[in-house]
Amino acid sequence: KINGERLWDSLMEMAKIGPGIAGGNNRQTLTDEDGEGRHLFQRWCEAAGCTMGVDEIGNMFARREGTDPDALPVYVGSHLDTQPTGGKYDGVLGVLGGLEVIRTLNDLDIKTKHPIVVTNWTNEEGTRYAPAMLASGVFAGKHALDWALDRVDAKGKRFGDELERIGWKGPEKVGDRKMHAFFELHIEQGPILEAEGKQIGVVTHGQGLRWVQCIVTGKESHTGSTPMHMRKNAGRGLALITELVHEIAMKNQPNAVGAIGHIDVYPNSRNIIPGKVVFTVDLRTHLLDKLNAMVAELMDRAPQICADIGVAFEAEIVGQFDPPAFDENCVAAVRHAAERLGYSHMDIVSGAGHDACWINDLYPTAMIMCPCVDGLSHNEAEEITPEWAAAGADVLFHAVVETAEI
Amino acid sequence: KINGERLWDSLMEMAKIGPGIAGGNNRQTLTDEDGEGRHLFQRWCEAAGCTMGVDEIGNMFARREGTDPDALPVYVGSHLDTQPTGGKYDGVLGVLGGLEVIRTLNDLDIKTKHPIVVTNWTNEEGTRYAPAMLASGVFAGKHALDWALDRVDAKGKRFGDELERIGWKGPEKVGDRKMHAFFELHIEQGPILEAEGKQIGVVTHGQGLRWVQCIVTGKESHTGSTPMHMRKNAGRGLALITELVHEIAMKNQPNAVGAIGHIDVYPNSRNIIPGKVVFTVDLRTHLLDKLNAMVAELMDRAPQICADIGVAFEAEIVGQFDPPAFDENCVAAVRHAAERLGYSHMDIVSGAGHDACWINDLYPTAMIMCPCVDGLSHNEAEEITPEWAAAGADVLFHAVVETAEI
Ligand SMILES: NC(=O)NCCC(=O)O
Ligand SMILES: NC(=O)NCCC(=O)O
Repeated sequence: KINGERLWDSLMEMAKIGPGIAGGNNRQTLTDEDGEGRHLFQRWCEAAGCTMGVDEIGNMFARREGTDPDALPVYVGSHLDTQPTGGKYDGVLGVLGGLEVIRTLNDLDIKTKHPIVVTNWTNEEGTRYAPAMLASGVFAGKHALDWALDRVDAKGKRFGDELERIGWKGPEKVGDRKMHAFFELHIEQGPILEAEGKQIGVVTHGQGLRWVQCIVTGKESHTGSTPMHMRKNAGRGLALITELVHEIAMKNQPNAVGAIGHIDVYPNSRNIIPGKVVFTVDLRTHLLDKLNAMVAELMDRAPQICADIGVAFEAEIVGQFDPPAFDENCVAAVRHAAERLGYSHMDIVSGAGHDACWINDLYPTAMIMCPCVDGLSHNEAEEITPEWAAAGADVLFHAVVETAEI
Repeated sequence: KINGERLWDSLMEMAKIGPGIAGGNNRQTLTDEDGEGRHLFQRWCEAAGCTMGVDEIGNMFARREGTDPDALPVYVGSHLDTQPTGGKYDGVLGVLGGLEVIRTLNDLDIKTKHPIVVTNWTNEEGTRYAPAMLASGVFAGKHALDWALDRVDAKGKRFGDELERIGWKGPEKVGDRKMHAFFELHIEQGPILEAEGKQIGVVTHGQGLRWVQCIVTGKESHTGSTPMHMRKNAGRGLALITELVHEIAMKNQPNAVGAIGHIDVYPNSRNIIPGKVVFTVDLRTHLLDKLNAMVAELMDRAPQICADIGVAFEAEIVGQFDPPAFDENCVAAVRHAAERLGYSHMDIVSGAGHDACWINDLYPTAMIMCPCVDGLSHNEAEEITPEWAAAGADVLFHAVVETAEI
């Protein structure tokens, strides 16, 4: 078993970097705080005897050597970046859980045949730079590196410039590494494990996602002196599409979700009718056909809904991944580990996207989930217990060691 | 007649300060650009032989002496601040039209019995600091000075601090001045004069306004892994209230308007269900009972609409004025001036709020409107013709000189 206390202490230590305003974290990708978190992780890895590699998009790879020089490494990891109002565990548990695997191997003086590499993927959250899982996506060949480096945040800052600014652009070509397998430990971010009273979620599938960025264009004009019949109120377009998205998700129950999380209103003045609203629709389900049908319904109906109130609708997909099915052998290794350790467990579908979803397209991959209180995530109040974290890391340890062979 | 070319040149010169991005202006109150605009106006006033007074809230008063030492001054003016995406004429025409009255009196070497004072009221727009017409409101005793100085903008900057920072906090006690009468020339900001082919609007009444700042509170959570039935989506509260406001305005036709111009979504991330949305509802009509009934309907229905989708609703009035009826004699002076000069004219209700609406509570007041292209205002594309500007300033000149007596 891993050292649960040490794991918890590391989680709390990392959470001191980029504290939020309500007990969580604001350590968004490529900020100074992200840079600081990376340095701490690097120091810990080096203290654990690992060598650190960094690629051109800032992905970090801490390697513990194996006994067979020809064996491909088993990778573990997740991400250290957070939402602007994020929790202390989303992503961080997977990276520091990986580090704990290595620390425990050191404690027990165990040598594995395959090397083990702990990874911190850059910009998993996708808040500052869409899409989410950007750097694991480049690693997996889903996006071109240059396209990723040219992403721009809301303040106009380029991804590539910010990466250099915080000093984490590495020399390694992105995606050059080959993996024997990849394992990601993550909090569920949903309510199912807690409700079912299970310690471990064996993730068999994930939901697919489409981020549809919409622009509704009306006409800026005075709220007081523009008669009702002359208005082109882009805010009403937002309102009607908010409800359309809700309707589409509800009629695809169970197993579908939809909402709008990001909204920018122009010019955002109390006495100006909004001339433009930019927002992103988030649609998900684990069934590919259903997912595509949901997007098609949005694209079909939104233009007419907007035309009916005199505003224009444009849309563009700014993030997407299809529902992944994880590798049977890796999933079995997770399930066996939970059984061997005597942890209660169940198969589960990941509600969120994860770096593992991209890596799964290239190499055998699986995920382990632990419960989180009230299913709450992407909220500073995100919480887990030390016992849940330790159980997840125990299962990660056993699955990884089984796969990396002693 | 006034010198239309000189007036136009001054309008174009002022528009160079705080240019917008689409041909208009961004010279929001208490910014560096506002400070620069004030300096230009001051230089022009001093060149025209006026003395400048400034009060503790930054209102500027450029005085041309009269012949009777006991006569109260006739005031003219409006505001030099603009919307973030504002036009070149909204407010500015009234200030520089007032300056043109003085320049013309100088040209013609006319002495009036009453002094004439050209005023630039601070923060008419109310975008950066709610409510609108803040400083004329303090002058008229509607708000306490300290309350006004303590207003905070979206970035947390205090009104009083910003006023000192740009160097325009004056020594004069706010509201100490007494007026013989007040005249404000303003663009209509609506479509009626242009549609009716009239050069001059004789403003008899104005609409009343209520700004209702609403906070809808839900629960931030993950857009992917939070099941639909567990969501508390504050964005849906915004959507439903956007449509409620539209419905309330439509069922009070004709002569009522309603919209939401200002919306802030928290935390505004693509994969976080909005936990909080703050927005301001703008409701107006020129009938007081109707106005109060519209607000009452909003306050009655919004809490239940929100409760039905699991979110909480709170609201607070952050700006308000009752429908003003302007002074009969001053209105008659405007109408006579238009007739005497042979300009086509009609009586009109002001759709927007104006500094004149507050001053009207204390001293005999009237407003003159000129058309604007397509009724467009609070938009950088706001446009008027030099002829419309000159006609408005001619009427202002005659009404003021008649009232100030030769
Ligand atoms: N795990 C997680 O929150 N990832 C961000 C991408 C997503 O929105 O699912
Ligand atoms: N004239 C003008 O746009 N004033 C701002 C206050 C209002 O919104 O009516």
